[in-house]
Amino acid sequence: MDRIVIGMDLGGTFLRAGAFNEEGKMLVVRETPIEAARGPESGMRKMQGLVQQVWAESGAKTLAGIGIGSTGPIDPIQGIINNPFTLPTWENVHVFEWLQKAFDIPITLENDADVAALGEYWQGAGRAIPRLYAVTLGTGIGTALILDGEIYRGLDGSHPEGGHMVLDPGGPLCYCKMHGCWESLCAGPAIEREAREADLTGSCLLDMVAGERGEIEARMVFEAARMGDPVGLSLVDRFTHYLIQGVLNVCILFVPDVIVLSGGLMRSADLFMPSLEAALQNYTEMVPAYRVHIIPTKLGYYAGLYGAAYTIWSKVL
Amino acid sequence: MDRIVIGMDLGGTFLRAGAFNEEGKMLVVRETPIEAARGPESGMRKMQGLVQQVWAESGAKTLAGIGIGSTGPIDPIQGIINNPFTLPTWENVHVFEWLQKAFDIPITLENDADVAALGEYWQGAGRAIPRLYAVTLGTGIGTALILDGEIYRGLDGSHPEGGHMVLDPGGPLCYCKMHGCWESLCAGPAIEREAREADLTGSCLLDMVAGERGEIEARMVFEAARMGDPVGLSLVDRFTHYLIQGVLNVCILFVPDVIVLSGGLMRSADLFMPSLEAALQNYTEMVPAYRVHIIPTKLGYYAGLYGAAYTIWSKVL
Repeated sequence: MDRIVIGMDLGGTFLRAGAFNEEGKMLVVRETPIEAARGPESGMRKMQGLVQQVWAESGAKTLAGIGIGSTGPIDPIQGIINNPFTLPTWENVHVFEWLQKAFDIPITLENDADVAALGEYWQGAGRAIPRLYAVTLGTGIGTALILDGEIYRGLDGSHPEGGHMVLDPGGPLCYCKMHGCWESLCAGPAIEREAREADLTGSCLLDMVAGERGEIEARMVFEAARMGDPVGLSLVDRFTHYLIQGVLNVCILFVPDVIVLSGGLMRSADLFMPSLEAALQNYTEMVPAYRVHIIPTKLGYYAGLYGAAYTIWSKVL
Repeated sequence: MDRIVIGMDLGGTFLRAGAFNEEGKMLVVRETPIEAARGPESGMRKMQGLVQQVWAESGAKTLAGIGIGSTGPIDPIQGIINNPFTLPTWENVHVFEWLQKAFDIPITLENDADVAALGEYWQGAGRAIPRLYAVTLGTGIGTALILDGEIYRGLDGSHPEGGHMVLDPGGPLCYCKMHGCWESLCAGPAIEREAREADLTGSCLLDMVAGERGEIEARMVFEAARMGDPVGLSLVDRFTHYLIQGVLNVCILFVPDVIVLSGGLMRSADLFMPSLEAALQNYTEMVPAYRVHIIPTKLGYYAGLYGAAYTIWSKVL
């Protein structure tokens, strides 16, 4: 093995790194808790250490570059993380400066949703697809658009946030200050909020919640629906309804070839994918939504590592 | 004058053609009723005749190409108009074949919203802007995205229809078969529908309508609002509310540098532009919407002619 690239994924909890050869094979992958609250200096040293470790374990002679996907807001052009929200104390952290001191090689910094989508483009569910739209359904809803293998950027390199388009102005207030954005209606916490507000009399959710010390989680709602529980089914129906509306809007606005879905809620995809696919099949009016392919992630957890590595390989090769 | 390009605009009522030099100056412009129901053969002969006329009047030696913007659906790759809706009897009309027989030069066919946006990019409100989004507010709502001077296309060259994204599922049913799409809430006919359903007691709209044999038109609603009429003001408020929601969604999903607004409703822009601009200024949450410029069309009627000519000039030059 001559040359590798390291792809990293910096999240609120874990830092992950993978070594990739130029064919897109992940040779080694390691992770460590980021412990963000200890501050960016500590975090940067962890990054440096993890790069050294993964590089050594890969057995490669040369490290051709480091690609980083990070929880945002970030500035991909200046290489700055400015995210005190999920990385407490990380304000105005100059990642390029830090890492270029340690490794004198190309370094990239991108939004985590963007690199995850790019990973699917390179080695996953959307290989070499001209227009790939990615939607992550988890604690929030993240989106990304990859056009001919390039990340679509808004003005000044900003990252569009399709998860915060308004779908129903009668919906709940989101931290984005709008009512009824997609995330407020369709992410995990939205399912949990609706479950807390529902009348659970006679529902198996009551027992599940009791077993978990009173906290309703989205996965319980899906589990209850799978067992035929009427409350669970109606909550999943509501979720599916807004999921369809959001995905249809994406089709109408972008007409992508492929929409890749990922995130924790995709563990219950069997409960909503058939309805989602049927809804797209039935939309033949203004745009050919019936021809847009909806595909679950192929790379899952590691999509961001692949995409981060690809930001380097696509420049080097 | 050595060389010109002719840009054409084929609408449901008129056919327009302009002669453009390579600096983007419109030297001659002419129009003729298309009388679409007489059939595509008659229409193609009209096109050919108008090209000849405009070319002759321009005094140019060489015609370098013909660019056509047409009311859709069209196939820009095959050069086919398939629009029996606004051009009765025009099904599967092979425009390239017809015109290439008469003029052996490059010919392009594009969606009218796309060329209008391209015109603004070339010579209008969005000159050389990397990410230009255009919204036409008229009988319908049309949208287009120009990225680095290129028309953004969906799968198989399809044209996205941002005007049909759903903004409020509690809204009225549209011909697109969805409830509460942008067009159903915000185009001219939506304003007229709301006015017909409103209680007009004491409103000056009653007199206006009587003067026009019972038909409420959107322009009357704006006129009434301008005179301080409470019904008119409340109808314009409703329109502005959904206009803001649609434009904010565009900002959240695309973060364009510029949004160009055009179409008949822009004649009343003074009544809603200040609120729209203020709403964008106030949106600082997920994307920098406060930095997106909202600009009225500079080319108006003729934007499509400019853009159609540019589809040729951008290839020839």
